[in-house]
Amino acid sequence: MTDTPAETDVAIIGAGPAGLFAAFQCAMLRLNCVLIDVLPEVGGQCAALYPEKPIYDIPACPAVEGAQLIARLEEQIAPFNIPRLLKHRVESLEGHRGNFTLGTNQGTTLKAKAIIIAAGAGAFGPNRPPLEGLEAFEDTGAVQYYVRRKADFAGRRIVIAGGGDSALDWALSLKDNAEKLYLVHRRDRFRGAPESLRQLDEAVAAGQIEKVVPYQLHALHGQNGALEGVEVADLDGATRMLEADVLLPFFGLATDLGPVARWGMDTMRSTIPVTPSSCETSLPGVFAVGDVATYPGKLKLILQGFSEAAMAAHAIYPIVNPDQALHFEYSTSKGVPA
Amino acid sequence: MTDTPAETDVAIIGAGPAGLFAAFQCAMLRLNCVLIDVLPEVGGQCAALYPEKPIYDIPACPAVEGAQLIARLEEQIAPFNIPRLLKHRVESLEGHRGNFTLGTNQGTTLKAKAIIIAAGAGAFGPNRPPLEGLEAFEDTGAVQYYVRRKADFAGRRIVIAGGGDSALDWALSLKDNAEKLYLVHRRDRFRGAPESLRQLDEAVAAGQIEKVVPYQLHALHGQNGALEGVEVADLDGATRMLEADVLLPFFGLATDLGPVARWGMDTMRSTIPVTPSSCETSLPGVFAVGDVATYPGKLKLILQGFSEAAMAAHAIYPIVNPDQALHFEYSTSKGVPA
Repeated sequence: MTDTPAETDVAIIGAGPAGLFAAFQCAMLRLNCVLIDVLPEVGGQCAALYPEKPIYDIPACPAVEGAQLIARLEEQIAPFNIPRLLKHRVESLEGHRGNFTLGTNQGTTLKAKAIIIAAGAGAFGPNRPPLEGLEAFEDTGAVQYYVRRKADFAGRRIVIAGGGDSALDWALSLKDNAEKLYLVHRRDRFRGAPESLRQLDEAVAAGQIEKVVPYQLHALHGQNGALEGVEVADLDGATRMLEADVLLPFFGLATDLGPVARWGMDTMRSTIPVTPSSCETSLPGVFAVGDVATYPGKLKLILQGFSEAAMAAHAIYPIVNPDQALHFEYSTSKGVPA
Repeated sequence: MTDTPAETDVAIIGAGPAGLFAAFQCAMLRLNCVLIDVLPEVGGQCAALYPEKPIYDIPACPAVEGAQLIARLEEQIAPFNIPRLLKHRVESLEGHRGNFTLGTNQGTTLKAKAIIIAAGAGAFGPNRPPLEGLEAFEDTGAVQYYVRRKADFAGRRIVIAGGGDSALDWALSLKDNAEKLYLVHRRDRFRGAPESLRQLDEAVAAGQIEKVVPYQLHALHGQNGALEGVEVADLDGATRMLEADVLLPFFGLATDLGPVARWGMDTMRSTIPVTPSSCETSLPGVFAVGDVATYPGKLKLILQGFSEAAMAAHAIYPIVNPDQALHFEYSTSKGVPA
């Protein structure tokens, strides 16, 4: 990658799929841009949380895994050598449409004519269960919140906790190679795709998954971070011990807009309302795309993040080129990058 | 493919990329659908007009050719066995939201609860130059409007006419294997990506392309459909003869909404205005996506057609399932199709 410039046309905050595709769209419109992310790698949640999880609904990419999707987006922007500021969290935003200054936690400043916030769920992190001594087990990997490599779980006794799609899908995915797989949920019902629920019933009937419901996590047993058992309690407080080497709690992501919330634009819980056709926020010249952006009828699909990135880049074009009309071209008539 | 049913949840009119992805989105939401197209194959313009032309701006599919894009979309919907009515033009639409009846030019009727119009540029066809005796040369392939197989043009003397992206891109693409390549345009300036214009200058300087400007097509010479020369005229009427075997006029597509224009919904030239967040037309229960759909700020990208297809399918869900809330899932938590 090239050196990071002190000035650019568009600063893109967040280098997940929506941010990467925003960079591509900017480049196709010959807008300079810089990709900024607090993580050490691009890819956002796709790379950090579910690199091996298949995604089904990216158009023309049937069943692409998170890491593959990012690799393909990287390939698409590679010809443009887009500068990156990784391991940088943008702390401050000052200025106005056409003339912004960003400051990062590393003391770097970057001037930009427009901003695209593609911050996904913000500073995401797992919801951790309130269990005593949890950190010691997290440190050794006996408690994990993401499955980065399925192979790490072969031959192990696994407790998966949670009732949503992640718990369900990982239970189905890990059952074949696990020594034993418990699925703990505080309710009887799981929430997931009808087809996944059917597969769960099948796996339970076949003895591949033991449902432990309605129970919740109660205590961790073991020494020096080596897990020996997960104690669960039912709604009356009666407990049961599940012998296990590893616990995977899937209780969702704790999301936090972080510094973005202090920049003066309207926010709504952990999202930023935008004008649908341009994705501009209430702060002129600042745009938001992907999961962080909201508007009536918003679908939280990666696809919508791509589409919003295209709209934002086109809306930014006249900010950077106030005297030029954009002669807009069809997909098929776009030129190949130089 | 399975037999076409007499009733379905969603009738999708047009089986180009937006229509194919609309079918995928419907299937993921467990809505039945039928794909209808007047052409004998799915793929719309991508398959019919530019199967070998690379498309650069599909997310995560760098430089995918039109035919490849369609093949990948086909792969994505293959598990669902979606019924198709090909070589059928929908002539009539009657009924209302929840209960429509379509009639085709083949006399087939289909009942559907909702309609997605993904008709692209409508009944598209090339703008044909007003030259005497044109049909005879069209019949033999001496005059063609689309490049379906580049190999057919190797070793030939080619006249390309037009000043836009198609003329430019095909001139650049065919020059290497042509015996001779003339590029005729009634103006001095070509309209295209900056990088393509640079490549044109280079090819002209290298003698690979002869620019014939400002000239326009005047007459075709030859017998029994075998082309011998293309006569061109400058703005003062002075003519010049270009010896050639084949003429490729790229004067854009003539678009026509066709029967759709008579179904009672608002239209605007060859497009249908829709509500952006749902893609519903002025006719309740009838949705439009892709190039045929318009709203303020609309970008005519294939990507936007995909995004609109997702919105339409989600907006249709409660029409088909009036008593069920759709528990909406993230991309990554979608189940695999059965």
